[in-house]
Amino acid sequence: MALPSYINDLQEWSESFHYNYPITVRFSETDAFGHMNNTVSFVYFEQGRISFFKDIGLGEEWFSNGGEGIPVTADLHCDYIRQVFFDENLLVSVKVAEIGNSSVDLHYKVTNEKGDICMTGRGRMVQVSQKTGKSLPWNEQARSLLEHA
Amino acid sequence: MALPSYINDLQEWSESFHYNYPITVRFSETDAFGHMNNTVSFVYFEQGRISFFKDIGLGEEWFSNGGEGIPVTADLHCDYIRQVFFDENLLVSVKVAEIGNSSVDLHYKVTNEKGDICMTGRGRMVQVSQKTGKSLPWNEQARSLLEHA
Amino acid sequence: MALPSYINDLQEWSESFHYNYPITVRFSETDAFGHMNNTVSFVYFEQGRISFFKDIGLGEEWFSNGGEGIPVTADLHCDYIRQVFFDENLLVSVKVAEIGNSSVDLHYKVTNEKGDICMTGRGRMVQVSQKTGKSLPWNEQARSLLEHA
Amino acid sequence: MALPSYINDLQEWSESFHYNYPITVRFSETDAFGHMNNTVSFVYFEQGRISFFKDIGLGEEWFSNGGEGIPVTADLHCDYIRQVFFDENLLVSVKVAEIGNSSVDLHYKVTNEKGDICMTGRGRMVQVSQKTGKSLPWNEQARSLLEHA
Repeated sequence: MALPSYINDLQEWSESFHYNYPITVRFSETDAFGHMNNTVSFVYFEQGRISFFKDIGLGEEWFSNGGEGIPVTADLHCDYIRQVFFDENLLVSVKVAEIGNSSVDLHYKVTNEKGDICMTGRGRMVQVSQKTGKSLPWNEQARSLLEHA
Repeated sequence: MALPSYINDLQEWSESFHYNYPITVRFSETDAFGHMNNTVSFVYFEQGRISFFKDIGLGEEWFSNGGEGIPVTADLHCDYIRQVFFDENLLVSVKVAEIGNSSVDLHYKVTNEKGDICMTGRGRMVQVSQKTGKSLPWNEQARSLLEHA
Repeated sequence: MALPSYINDLQEWSESFHYNYPITVRFSETDAFGHMNNTVSFVYFEQGRISFFKDIGLGEEWFSNGGEGIPVTADLHCDYIRQVFFDENLLVSVKVAEIGNSSVDLHYKVTNEKGDICMTGRGRMVQVSQKTGKSLPWNEQARSLLEHA
Repeated sequence: MALPSYINDLQEWSESFHYNYPITVRFSETDAFGHMNNTVSFVYFEQGRISFFKDIGLGEEWFSNGGEGIPVTADLHCDYIRQVFFDENLLVSVKVAEIGNSSVDLHYKVTNEKGDICMTGRGRMVQVSQKTGKSLPWNEQARSLLEHA
């Protein structure tokens, strides 16, 4: 298969993930073709992403409405490599690919129990100020957390 | 079939609806058994209900965050009479069954293009104050709108 | 509060559950009122139910398409006692309330981390033959599994 | 803003769509940030795509299980330009961007009532044989339908 543009070396890319979020395919997430409906991978990405942010110490503030900034999705991309079915146990792996001034590019890898890659993906999140509606640059602490993720 | 407890006379009940909300079964709403997943009927009820409230002049305030009260679901019940499949065009009919002090009992009927009943349902909504978190009695105008719905 | 018709004694009822399925509220399951959208409880019931069936040894056959029968939802009922929010860890408890000839009535209890009841519910599942489309009586083994659940 | 890689000239691109599918943001599709949850755009893309296929005469066969091939999603990409909120009336525009041997690249544009672009996207669908599980080249008729879409 041709690699997505965000992957140079598949093996190297695949081994560069250190955070894994487990998820099991629900019955309501299948469709009449018998497999997981394609729209569901983005739900898995979102859960993996939020869990990743919490794990590195960033999420608390965003999702408790305590802080000024909230994370906004700028774009999302999913490549479907292998069909998945009801009740499969998957791992959603998440990593930081690039850090911008007020944004971060995340990569996603979804594997099944055998370790086969089922989906890959990427997407950019932007921190946006709830007050101004504009992008809000990372403060030093947040940048440091992302850099050491 | 045995009638649900909230229906006395099926024909009379069925003919007592005057508000219809059209909806088409989406592909992502089907599941691996090939039909609409059972959790989806409540999405249809919600859309039918909100559209009904807007139609009688009640919704605007609740969903614009302009008013003090918001509608909270107290309970929901669905009886599945006939399976529905991808791309079926359905009508979600909604009516007021009973008006309480700060609540309203709604009935639902979902029919297919032939007019066959596919699902029936009911549920109680309570108007809750965003300030106090407690039930908020209908004012005269709201009660009047519900009584003449 | 008035008890739902399917609960006689709340404490006795609450203590009669022995199967628990853990689930965490996803961000995509919240809505603009800030809490879990009411349609989501039925997704939780479905996951709890399927997991319960697998646990007692019944699910395998149904969801592998290996057998003649599939479980069809006859009705579903949810009572919303307490709002739940993003990231709350819930337990979906499931039990057999009554066994019919080809059906089973299940009860549901959803509790939060403090043990507070957030939702209660019930629903009847019917085993339906994929060949005839009609209800398919439990065989002795299935009935025994349900009776000893 | 920087244009996504699949758009050269925004105005030219925007004017090249001729098929529009209307959709209204549901309440259950919003999240606790108050806007449409990011995972929902792919549900809109799917509905727009299926409706587009039906419109040009391709969908019937795929979704009735009558034919050998079914459409499988190879990848999906969404760029979020403008937040959308509950009850907004949107148009999902769909067009063929490129036709492969057994695949087709589709582009998506989602606009609000003012005509502002809220989301753009693209994705490749592959026709797959249900028998072999491998890609199934377009027959002449299907290719012609896609070319003249």
